[in-house]
Amino acid sequence: MKHRNAVLVCFSGGQDSTTCLFWAKKYFEKVETVCFTYGQKHSLETEIAGKIADDANVPFQLLDISLLSQLAPNSLTDFSIKMDNEKPENSYPNTFVPGRNMIFLTFAAVLARSKGIFDIVTGVSEADYSGYPDCRDTFIRSLNVSLNLAMDEQFVIHTPLMNRDKSKVWQLADELGVFDLIRTQTLTCYNGIPAEGCGHCPACKLRRQGLETYLLGKNKNLLL
Amino acid sequence: MKHRNAVLVCFSGGQDSTTCLFWAKKYFEKVETVCFTYGQKHSLETEIAGKIADDANVPFQLLDISLLSQLAPNSLTDFSIKMDNEKPENSYPNTFVPGRNMIFLTFAAVLARSKGIFDIVTGVSEADYSGYPDCRDTFIRSLNVSLNLAMDEQFVIHTPLMNRDKSKVWQLADELGVFDLIRTQTLTCYNGIPAEGCGHCPACKLRRQGLETYLLGKNKNLLL
Repeated sequence: MKHRNAVLVCFSGGQDSTTCLFWAKKYFEKVETVCFTYGQKHSLETEIAGKIADDANVPFQLLDISLLSQLAPNSLTDFSIKMDNEKPENSYPNTFVPGRNMIFLTFAAVLARSKGIFDIVTGVSEADYSGYPDCRDTFIRSLNVSLNLAMDEQFVIHTPLMNRDKSKVWQLADELGVFDLIRTQTLTCYNGIPAEGCGHCPACKLRRQGLETYLLGKNKNLLL
Repeated sequence: MKHRNAVLVCFSGGQDSTTCLFWAKKYFEKVETVCFTYGQKHSLETEIAGKIADDANVPFQLLDISLLSQLAPNSLTDFSIKMDNEKPENSYPNTFVPGRNMIFLTFAAVLARSKGIFDIVTGVSEADYSGYPDCRDTFIRSLNVSLNLAMDEQFVIHTPLMNRDKSKVWQLADELGVFDLIRTQTLTCYNGIPAEGCGHCPACKLRRQGLETYLLGKNKNLLL
């Protein structure tokens, strides 16, 4: 009953996890998605994720772990906290939800196991500007071991974006044939505006800079 | 704001975690408790836990993670599954909730951090008859590392019962001066009956055998 050709993608409908979804569709026969709600300000995010999954013809499951946002106040779920636009010098930006990826991936693993799936994909990246500790390769590897020990199973966590900055994520989307889809349908903006977003939040700036860098490099290569 | 003299105890009102609560009260200045509900059949369990915490004069916080029981059917939360009374030869008893301790301890760590607490106590034991993988020392140590990496903090997970069988847990309760309290007020029974319980479920058998072994040894020593 163990499918090593099946995979569960942690999916939010953003640029990164949508790229991961199509990466998974390329390399695995059977792809499912799980999307976590935890009191995000913008419920549009989960609607968009559901639509992208539907269009891609993969099952979509929503898990409500809003308990998390009650435990640790942060600017993604609490309207009374003004979002950090820059990373504070000696700490993490207040968009950081402590332990978030650990909770997500642990629930994803429990869910995957119940389906006989032991491969999990997450779009975390060490090249991410904010340096969230739970996006680092060392953490993911440690978590993978903890999950295997907790359940006496052999999970494999895949991180196709780990060493890619945003321009390389655009490149991967292009290689996977979903450049336009990701450019026009995903939602990355902290202010909840799809595609190119508000343009001034950290997520929009990062996305746009990555896109410009990628297109510049691509055009140069075309001219050579 | 970091209290190394404060501790958060994962607390269910059973024999093991109640012993841990009084162990924590002996070794730490400030003790708080967190209790997880996840659709247990017997809500009396959380009532009893709340009463013991109140009597012990420590804060008690209840976290509802019933999502967990929707993800992975098991006989502790699903009435339609008949409980295994013996451990199946090649698997775990169906009282095993996969990933349970990992979820509990991760939420406990997020909660503890929000209070400036970085010491956590759990009553897991490797000597436990069922051999649940998420009770083993190796798993707890791996999880401790994963938590520290996830949040860039220095948590310490304490497991005072790790190498104690049930008779040695009774011994510890006696040494801590709470033998009678634990004998008469805690709930361990899978069928939801406090103190000596139903007498025939695996938890009751284990508790009684441990008690008899402990009292036998104690009486022998008294006679010497």
